[in-house]
Amino acid sequence: MSNRTTIPSSFAQKDCDRVAGLFAQIATRTADTQGVSRPAYSEIETETINFLIDFARKNGLEVEFDAAANALFSLPEDRDAEKYVLVGSHADSVPNGGNFDGLAGILAGLICLVRAREEGRKFARPVKVIALRGEESAWYGPCYIGSKALFGLLGANELGALHKGDQRPLSAHMADSGIDMKPVKAGQKLFDPSRLLAYVEVHIEQGPLLVNKDLPVANVSGIRGNIRHKAITCIGEAGHSGAVPRAYRRDPVLAMADLFTRLDDDWDTILQKGDDLVLTSGVVGTDPQKHAIARIPDSISFSLDVRSQDVETLDSMRDLLRAHMRIVERNRKIRFEMDDELSVAPALCDADIVAGISAAMRRLGYEDYVMPSGAGHDAAVFANNGVPTGMIFIRNRNGSHNPHEAMEMDDFMAASSVLYDYLTFDDGAA
Amino acid sequence: MSNRTTIPSSFAQKDCDRVAGLFAQIATRTADTQGVSRPAYSEIETETINFLIDFARKNGLEVEFDAAANALFSLPEDRDAEKYVLVGSHADSVPNGGNFDGLAGILAGLICLVRAREEGRKFARPVKVIALRGEESAWYGPCYIGSKALFGLLGANELGALHKGDQRPLSAHMADSGIDMKPVKAGQKLFDPSRLLAYVEVHIEQGPLLVNKDLPVANVSGIRGNIRHKAITCIGEAGHSGAVPRAYRRDPVLAMADLFTRLDDDWDTILQKGDDLVLTSGVVGTDPQKHAIARIPDSISFSLDVRSQDVETLDSMRDLLRAHMRIVERNRKIRFEMDDELSVAPALCDADIVAGISAAMRRLGYEDYVMPSGAGHDAAVFANNGVPTGMIFIRNRNGSHNPHEAMEMDDFMAASSVLYDYLTFDDGAA
Repeated sequence: MSNRTTIPSSFAQKDCDRVAGLFAQIATRTADTQGVSRPAYSEIETETINFLIDFARKNGLEVEFDAAANALFSLPEDRDAEKYVLVGSHADSVPNGGNFDGLAGILAGLICLVRAREEGRKFARPVKVIALRGEESAWYGPCYIGSKALFGLLGANELGALHKGDQRPLSAHMADSGIDMKPVKAGQKLFDPSRLLAYVEVHIEQGPLLVNKDLPVANVSGIRGNIRHKAITCIGEAGHSGAVPRAYRRDPVLAMADLFTRLDDDWDTILQKGDDLVLTSGVVGTDPQKHAIARIPDSISFSLDVRSQDVETLDSMRDLLRAHMRIVERNRKIRFEMDDELSVAPALCDADIVAGISAAMRRLGYEDYVMPSGAGHDAAVFANNGVPTGMIFIRNRNGSHNPHEAMEMDDFMAASSVLYDYLTFDDGAA
Repeated sequence: MSNRTTIPSSFAQKDCDRVAGLFAQIATRTADTQGVSRPAYSEIETETINFLIDFARKNGLEVEFDAAANALFSLPEDRDAEKYVLVGSHADSVPNGGNFDGLAGILAGLICLVRAREEGRKFARPVKVIALRGEESAWYGPCYIGSKALFGLLGANELGALHKGDQRPLSAHMADSGIDMKPVKAGQKLFDPSRLLAYVEVHIEQGPLLVNKDLPVANVSGIRGNIRHKAITCIGEAGHSGAVPRAYRRDPVLAMADLFTRLDDDWDTILQKGDDLVLTSGVVGTDPQKHAIARIPDSISFSLDVRSQDVETLDSMRDLLRAHMRIVERNRKIRFEMDDELSVAPALCDADIVAGISAAMRRLGYEDYVMPSGAGHDAAVFANNGVPTGMIFIRNRNGSHNPHEAMEMDDFMAASSVLYDYLTFDDGAA
C-alpha cells in the first residue's frame, strides 16, 4: 500500500471485517486460474447471488427476485414500499477478472442495509439493493443485460448472441437461470420504473484518476457515450520498400499515422476548451498473411473508440474524423474503408443526486470531487430510461477487467459511508 | 498493354522471338501454383542453368562453371581472356515469384553473345556472362549467396541458415549443387576479382518509376543501402479506453503515429534538399493475444526499413530516429525498445560505366535517365568489393517478387540493345 490519504469511515471495524470476509469468500468460491470468473447467467453467478442471499437473510434482510432473476434486498419495513431508491451493481465478472468490479457496489448497498437495521436507523426514503446479472460484455458480446432486460430492451440479436464458451445463445442461458423468456422476447418491461425514486451505483473506478489525485471516492457526473469502429481499413498500394520513390507511394501506414496525429491534435484542442473526450485505437495491424519488412503494405486496419460525456463533442469528433480522412486521402492517395459505426449515447447523472452525493461527501470530510465515468455501467441504462441516477466511484489501482485490480478496504468503506450518509440524510425533499 | 513510348531495338525480330521462347520455356519448367519458384541451390535452379547451357552450346557459345557452381558463358575467342567484362544476374526466384526477376539479366547477356557470334562482331573488351545462383533471401534468409561465395564472404551464420522448407542448412544445399565447401567455409575467394574489368547487370526495375515516366530503360547510379529494424516495440501502459484521461495515458499507438509523422516530415525535408531516401514500416501491430477495442494497448511493434544511396543520409536518419524517439518518449511517457539494427552499405556504380551506359542509351535514341536502385542486387556485392559496376533497369509493371510482374519484350530488347551497344562500342579506353 502506498502513501494514501484516508479519512476514517463512519462504519464500525466489524462492518469492514464482515465485508472483507464476504469479498474473500466470494473470491475463493469463484476463483479461476487467475483472478475470478463469474460468467453472466451461469451457475457460478447464481451461486454468488445465493451466497449473498444467505448473508442477507442471516442479517435479517428481506430478499426477493425480479422477473429477470436479479436479487433484491431490503429492510423488512421497506419491502413493500410503493416507491424506493434502488442501489446496486452487478454480480458477474469478466473471465479472469478482478473480484471488486460489480461486487463492490452490491456489498456497499448490503452493508448499508445491515448497518441501518442494526442501528435501528430509517432511510430518508425506502431503499432496495439489487444484485444485477449479466453486465459484462465478455461472455456474449452484449452488455448491461440484466438492466436492459428489466426495461424490455433486449433485442433478438442480443438474445441470440452466442456464449463465447459453449456457443449456446444468451436466451438459453437466461432461461436456465429461471427467467420466463416470453416477456423478455416480447420486449416487455419486467418492472415498473416509475416506482424508482433513484438508482445509485457504487463501483470501483476503472481508470487511474483517484489514485493519482489521492482521493478515496468520487462523485460521478455522468457516463461517457462512445462512437466505436471495430476496424477501419486504410487501403494503399503494395510495393518494394526500396524501389518505390516517395512521390509514387500510397503508403497506408504513414497515412494512418497522419490521421492519428491529426485526431490527437484535435483531442488536445477539445480538452483545452474544457470539453470531455478520450480517444483510443486499441487494435492496429498490417495483414500477417502479406506483410514483410521490405514491402510497403497494401493496407492497415485499426479500431477506434471515441468517448465523451457530451453528444455534441462526439458529433464534432465524428465530423473531424471524416474531414481528416478526406484530407489524408487526397494528400496521400490512399482510401479509408469504414465499417459500421457502433455508438452508445452518453448518460448524465441527475443533478439533484449529484448534489446530494456531494453534500454527503462534504459532511463526511471528503473532497466532493466530481468526474465522468469512462467505462459503461448499468447506471447508464437506468439514466437513459428516465430514472434519476447517481454513481459513487471507489479508488482502485491497476484498472479493472484483470486480476490485478487493487481496491483497498478503507476506500470501500469510505464509499459505503458516502452512500449511507446519502441514503439516511433527510433533506426534507421526500 | 497501355500506351507506351517504344523505340525499335537494335536486335532482329528473330532474337526477340528466341528470348521470348526461352522465357516461356523456363516459366513452364519452373512453374508453381502461382508464378514460378526457382529455389536457391535446388535441382530446379540447376536444371534452369542446364537449360541455358544447352541453349548456349547449341548457339556456339563456350560454357564453364566457377567454383561456386555459377555458370559462365562466352564467345569461343573470349573463353581464356585474362581480363573480361562480367555480365549477368541470378537464376533463382522467390517462391511464387515472377519469371523476369534475375532471369532477364542472364538472357540479356546471352542474347548479346549469340548476336555477336552470328554477326561476327567483336566486343570492345572480352565478355563473360554469368548465371548466378542464390540471390534471393526468401529461401534461407541471407541474400546474394552466389556472388558472396565468389568473394569468400559467406560467414558461418549464413552457411548454417536453414532452408525455409526442408530445414537443412544452406551449406548442405550448396554441397548438393556440386560446390566444394571447404574453401567456402574457409572464407577463401573462389575467383580472381582482379580479372574483372567490370560487372554489368541488367535487371527489371522493382518500382514504378519507368512505368510512370514512360521510359523503357534506365541507367542505375547505385544501389541504396539500408538500415533495418525487424521490430521496434513502443511500450506504454494498458488501460480502459474510456476510463483513463489523456493526461494519465501512456498510449503506444499515438506515440508510434507521432514518431512516424516526424520521420515522414524529415523524409520530405531530405528529398527537398535533393538527397536520396525511402522509408517504410511494413509490419505494424498490436499484440493479438491482448489487444481489444476498449483497451489502450500496452505496446505496439513496428518494422523500419530506411534506404538511401548515401551513407551520410542513412547516418542522419539514424540520428533523427533516435532524437525523435527521445522526444516522443519524454512527451508521451512511453519507451521505445529497439532490436539490433541490420544494415547494408550503399553501393555506388562506377562513374565511367554509368557514363558509358548513358552514351550507349543516347546513341540508340533513348533518354539517358539515371536512377538509384532501391532493391538490392548481386551488383552491390561486386561494387562493394572493388569491381567497377553498372546496372541497366528494364521497365516493369507491378513490382517484383510476385507473379504479376509485367515486363514487356520490347523493353527487354531495348535494355539488351543498350547492353550490346555498351559492350561493342570501342571508346579507345581499353
